[in-house]
Amino acid sequence: MSLLEATIVNIKELDLEAINEVKDYQNKLTKPQGSLGILEELSLQLSGITGQKFPDIEKKAVVIMAADHGVVAEGISAYPSEVTPQMVNNFIQGGAAINVLSRHTGSDVFVVDVGVATDLDHPKVLSYKVKLGTENMAQGPAMTKKEAIQALEVGIKVANDLTGKGYRMLATGEMGIGNTTASSALVAAFMGVPAVEVTGKGTGIQGEVIIHKAKVIDGAIAFNQLNPKEPIDVLAKVGGLEIAALAGLILGAAAKQIPVVIDGFISSAAALVAWKIAPRSMGYMISSHCSAEMAHRKLLQYMGLKPVLELEMRLGEGTGAVLAFPLIEAAVKIVKEMATFESAGIAGAND
Amino acid sequence: MSLLEATIVNIKELDLEAINEVKDYQNKLTKPQGSLGILEELSLQLSGITGQKFPDIEKKAVVIMAADHGVVAEGISAYPSEVTPQMVNNFIQGGAAINVLSRHTGSDVFVVDVGVATDLDHPKVLSYKVKLGTENMAQGPAMTKKEAIQALEVGIKVANDLTGKGYRMLATGEMGIGNTTASSALVAAFMGVPAVEVTGKGTGIQGEVIIHKAKVIDGAIAFNQLNPKEPIDVLAKVGGLEIAALAGLILGAAAKQIPVVIDGFISSAAALVAWKIAPRSMGYMISSHCSAEMAHRKLLQYMGLKPVLELEMRLGEGTGAVLAFPLIEAAVKIVKEMATFESAGIAGAND
Repeated sequence: MSLLEATIVNIKELDLEAINEVKDYQNKLTKPQGSLGILEELSLQLSGITGQKFPDIEKKAVVIMAADHGVVAEGISAYPSEVTPQMVNNFIQGGAAINVLSRHTGSDVFVVDVGVATDLDHPKVLSYKVKLGTENMAQGPAMTKKEAIQALEVGIKVANDLTGKGYRMLATGEMGIGNTTASSALVAAFMGVPAVEVTGKGTGIQGEVIIHKAKVIDGAIAFNQLNPKEPIDVLAKVGGLEIAALAGLILGAAAKQIPVVIDGFISSAAALVAWKIAPRSMGYMISSHCSAEMAHRKLLQYMGLKPVLELEMRLGEGTGAVLAFPLIEAAVKIVKEMATFESAGIAGAND
Repeated sequence: MSLLEATIVNIKELDLEAINEVKDYQNKLTKPQGSLGILEELSLQLSGITGQKFPDIEKKAVVIMAADHGVVAEGISAYPSEVTPQMVNNFIQGGAAINVLSRHTGSDVFVVDVGVATDLDHPKVLSYKVKLGTENMAQGPAMTKKEAIQALEVGIKVANDLTGKGYRMLATGEMGIGNTTASSALVAAFMGVPAVEVTGKGTGIQGEVIIHKAKVIDGAIAFNQLNPKEPIDVLAKVGGLEIAALAGLILGAAAKQIPVVIDGFISSAAALVAWKIAPRSMGYMISSHCSAEMAHRKLLQYMGLKPVLELEMRLGEGTGAVLAFPLIEAAVKIVKEMATFESAGIAGAND
């Protein structure tokens, strides 16, 4: 059995017993029942994921999967591909938004080269390069099926490695000029809608360029003859190396009973792939935010995910995901640290 | 000039020069312009409030104003008034939700007795009792105008005291069985709508009790002959002591150029009063969350406030406000700590 197959088999249903125990206990805490809303839902999910009444999620990290996209040749991005390695360098130097927000929320940053189009050689970059960027999906498959599986397994390996090092909550991050195009292609393919309905401005393209981007995506989907019932086939033909690796990270986290916090549109496209490959992985995902990228809300609704934050962000890198960390931790601490009506000597509701 | 009058006079317009300086600087940071959405708006507001490019908001506190409500005699609450002092005790013991969330977000908790209906004598409670709870607004004014001003000035004194102690960001919290009734009455009066449109379930009443609550409010508004153009008159007749004190806290913070984070429905009703008394105070308010209390969204829209969080919470105490602290701090750190395109050697957008 391959690493991918073994991982999928290891993903369990959430622990219902733990969920029910926490649900009962929450009603004894000194607050009106249900009055902490989504925090209460999160604490139930986290107990279901970990099987623990008081889940240990203290040590946490964001994993930035970086790769390039051949489809950038079609003129679909506001920035050139050279920005991918430049931003990887920025992550390593600690000057990017994700560095600031990770320091702020007490999480570590790991940068993984799954397929940046130039050679990166830095001890702080985890080197798992599958190839020097995808092929141009407008002219053929972005990856072979073998490469897609290899990239998926990069994510699984990273998840296994980090859980082995004691990390108990992971967030998805990414860097890859052109990756909203690959994400919109995946969403259009799996949802079966024309690209124009799920294509947005990415890092900042406007008007006609967005329409062109949608045409490129529709063309790539038609040309590559996708089979939506074969998620890895779709991923290989119109996805991206970092998206595949993130899907693998999600599957790997789920198999280890670790919550995985999903960032914005690109990360959600990876979550979509993970869900199609292994439906049970859904229970392990926490949607951090709904971004300003046009199709993100539709995608979250399609997947039944409820984002914790709505901050009109559209940066990626994992920035929204790490911003959700303090809220997720708050949900756990409420259950662990609050007094009960009995322990505090407080009257209950009127009969 | 009274303390209240002197405070109102001291509230300035936001510092436009500081806002424009930060706006220019944000566009040099290594991210697509505007891609951090509401975080960018927050950082502009904070610079406008403080006049600083990198606002100092490190030392922060939530102030819980506690008081009782004579209108509880009308059977409008799910909990009896005795829960107010019991919860004050819980705050002091550190077992309430606000204690857990304040510890989590690095903020201090101050509990102020503005008008709890029983004698409280605890060194950890700041004793500023104006009276032993309001009168029953269904049968007469909740407070005299003098008492309302006294309660407003309690809030101003607390704001002055805390800013003197180095606190640079304040959050509003409250405890007072019956205070959603007073809040709905204020909102109905100022917005000029029937109570049924702005009356919800509070801590957990249902169906007919909600309708009864709305009737009590409409009755109190009619009986007391309010003058919506005299905000202190409205506050006195159908408000609450803790609501008045919170309005004062907001005015006091604004006069000291300190951001004040507004919690849920009751705190927002206090913000409404502060705004009506001193329109310029609005610029100093940050709405933390939109609660599940029915009228909260309407009220925020009426005031033009955009909440940072939507977590379906309805607990009060300041819980939503302190949960917003990490996001507000993140907004400031982004400006302070991110690299610029130039410093990081990164290519800009395609022309």
